[in-house]
This record gives sequence, structure tokens and C-alpha cells, in this order.
Amino acid sequence: MHLSYDPCITETTQHHTLTDAESHHAIKVLHMHVGDRIGIINGQGLLAQAIITTIHARKCQVEILSIHQQQPPNYSLHIAIAPTKNTDRIDFCVEKVIEIGATHITFLHTQNAVRRSIKLERYNNIAVSAIKQSQRLFLPEIVGLTNVNDFVAQFPNGYIAHCRDGEKQHLTDIFDGQNPILIGPEGDFTTQEIDRALQCGYQSITLSNNRLRTETAGVCAGVLAMATVKST
Amino acid sequence: MHLSYDPCITETTQHHTLTDAESHHAIKVLHMHVGDRIGIINGQGLLAQAIITTIHARKCQVEILSIHQQQPPNYSLHIAIAPTKNTDRIDFCVEKVIEIGATHITFLHTQNAVRRSIKLERYNNIAVSAIKQSQRLFLPEIVGLTNVNDFVAQFPNGYIAHCRDGEKQHLTDIFDGQNPILIGPEGDFTTQEIDRALQCGYQSITLSNNRLRTETAGVCAGVLAMATVKST
Repeated sequence: MHLSYDPCITETTQHHTLTDAESHHAIKVLHMHVGDRIGIINGQGLLAQAIITTIHARKCQVEILSIHQQQPPNYSLHIAIAPTKNTDRIDFCVEKVIEIGATHITFLHTQNAVRRSIKLERYNNIAVSAIKQSQRLFLPEIVGLTNVNDFVAQFPNGYIAHCRDGEKQHLTDIFDGQNPILIGPEGDFTTQEIDRALQCGYQSITLSNNRLRTETAGVCAGVLAMATVKST
Repeated sequence: MHLSYDPCITETTQHHTLTDAESHHAIKVLHMHVGDRIGIINGQGLLAQAIITTIHARKCQVEILSIHQQQPPNYSLHIAIAPTKNTDRIDFCVEKVIEIGATHITFLHTQNAVRRSIKLERYNNIAVSAIKQSQRLFLPEIVGLTNVNDFVAQFPNGYIAHCRDGEKQHLTDIFDGQNPILIGPEGDFTTQEIDRALQCGYQSITLSNNRLRTETAGVCAGVLAMATVKST
């Protein structure tokens, strides 16, 4: 069933008008008709089953047939990552980690980072599209550029993926299903940043025997963390 | 160390001229100088350590200092996947699974597939770039569009990721480090294709509790398979 997104849907909604964009998609792209069924999610765990009652390219109306409220996931998958210079690469990473199951994403500002700004609305749109695609009912929280030193102070304990030599553990052996995973920028975290994180209680992790690009490391961390969560 | 690729390098090479593209990259992009060190791989496990002796934007010359021949990996990670309609998505998938460790990629032609042709040279270039990035010494083998029914006849036994209901096992519980993993197209494999694969000895697998796009499933399968290989 096609999913539409509207944060305004609540447990008491009976009749509803889809947003402009969702109406356009349902009618002009998917060619839906009166009587067709559609799901509506609010990003807070609610899934409404609805039936289309009035066709309109900008104001498609539906009647709600049933409401299901899901419990929040019993894990947290928080990926904190420095945005790549190439926008496509970080876009792809964000889309993939959300499809896979990320619950929080924070963009990191680091000494070796090249990006000084991020368009948060762009990533919220990617997040909405990704949860609809993967049929997840909770919209991940996305936080804009945050200094990595501030981040590790705010979230003591976690996992840091970096390229510096030294003892590292495989993420799947130690991920607790709660604490954040830091992914280094192109050019890696600086020694100072790594030391600060370790002092705050972070553990150095490895994700692969190969040298991974930033966005590959982000996706890899997401897949491995979710595999750990599912198996516990 | 920056890696350059040239399939002509052998164990007996002493002096070498980089290809046009590799010369340009070393001199014009990386601004390398006489005396700088560079690695050269041939995609067949050989890594030559070299020093630049003559700067030229199209014919940069190097002297080989040492040669290392690596043994082939003791696993096979063969991802067989239907190309997505959107070229960027399948490009990204190919790049990522090679960075992660794929040894073979086959593009599948399936009943629900939208693509009728594939530019193999494009994917060989992506593969060269990905092994240089991830510092792998073996170039994966990439095979162009192959009918899925022919594929399962050629490679009996393997794993098939699809969306049809029924008993499935998690890839990490059963991957043997050898047999291929089939990833369904947008629109999934048909019932007939799934049944044919199962009759040939394939096992139905799940990669995630969420519904994944084709390219996400490909990357996810790669990460999970490599995690299984590393832990055995």
C-alpha cells in the first residue's frame, strides 16, 4: 500500500485532505482513483488506513478507516557523521541509513570537514521519503552541524570510527543498541578529536578491513548496528 | 599512499610510464613531484611501490622500488543484481559493494527489470576507482546483463533476497562465503523466477526488517556477507 506522510494526522482524525505534494503524487504520479486505499503516517508511529473519497490534484480527500499506533523502537541508532564535500554522497548515505533503521542523525562539524553549512530541510525531506519507502512509522530526528567536541560532551559514551592505528573493536561485538556512532570526515578526525572522544568514554571501532569512504562507513555502520540489534 | 592502476604491471617491471589518465591525476590533481612515492596495482593482487622520476602530465615515469604479490581472497562475494532504472542508484551500489569487498558482480536481466542494456566499461571504471579508494589489490569481475534463469542454472546454490512471504533466513546465519547472492529488481523477482531459483538450490534470505530499495538491499547484503566472512 502506498504511504502518504502528514504530521497533522492524529488518532481522532476521521476525514482528511492530503497535502499539495501528497495529492499530486497520489493522483498525477500513481493515478489513484476514488475508492483506492492509501496509508497515511504521521512520523510519530501512527498509521492510518484510508480510502480516497475525492480526487483533486492538490486537495485529495480521504476517509480514515482505521488507525494503528506503533510503539517506538526499543533501540537507538544514532549516526553522527561529517557531511562529505560531494552532496550526492552524503544524501545517499542519509537515505540509506534511514531505510536501514537509523533513529537519529547528527551532522558533525570537524577540523578536517569541508562543509560549513547544511540544508536541514533537504535532509528532512530525504528522511520522509526514506521512511515511506521502507515503511517505517517513526521519522528520525536530524540535527544540523554540531561541533564534534560539543557532541561527545553532550553524548558521553559511544563508538568512534577512525583510521588512526591502535586497538579497535568490531562494531558488531560491542554495539549496545543505544549509544551514538561517530563517522570521521574525508581526511579523518584529528588526533585531538579522537583523544577527546576517547576521554569522554568513546570506544574506537572498525567497520571493515578495507579503507572506506565517509559515506560508505556511515552506511556500513548502520547495517552492522541493525544486524546487532536484531540478533539480541 | 596514492594508488595508481595499470593492468600491465608485472613482477619483473622495473621502469614504468603511468597511463594518460593516471599521469594527469598524479601531476595535475595531486600535484606530485619527482621523488614522491606512489603505489601501482594491476588488479591481480600485485602492489608495486614506486618513485616518480619524470614529471609529465600525460607520461609520468616511475622507477619500481619493490613488488608485493598478495594471495587472492579466501572468500567469494558475488552480488547478482538487477540494475535500477535510476543510473545513480546502481552506480552507487556497485561502488559501495566493491569498497566493502565484493569479488564478483553480475547484472541480472529479470522479468520486472526496466533496463535492457548496461555499459560494462562504466562499471569497470567504477570498480577501478573503488579498489584504489579502498586499497584492495584484486579487481572484481563484472559481468553484463544475464538472464536470472540462466544465472541460477549456471550457479546452482546461493541466496535469493525477495519480498514474497514465506520462510526466510537471515543472510548472516547461512552465508558460506562462496555462493552468490541474488538481489531482486524494483518490482521484485516474479514468483516463477523465485521458484526456479529455489528449485536450483537457492535459499530465501532476509536482509532487514524494513522494506529496502534494490540498491540498498545490494549494499546491505555486501556488508552483512563481509561481516560473516570476517568472523569465521
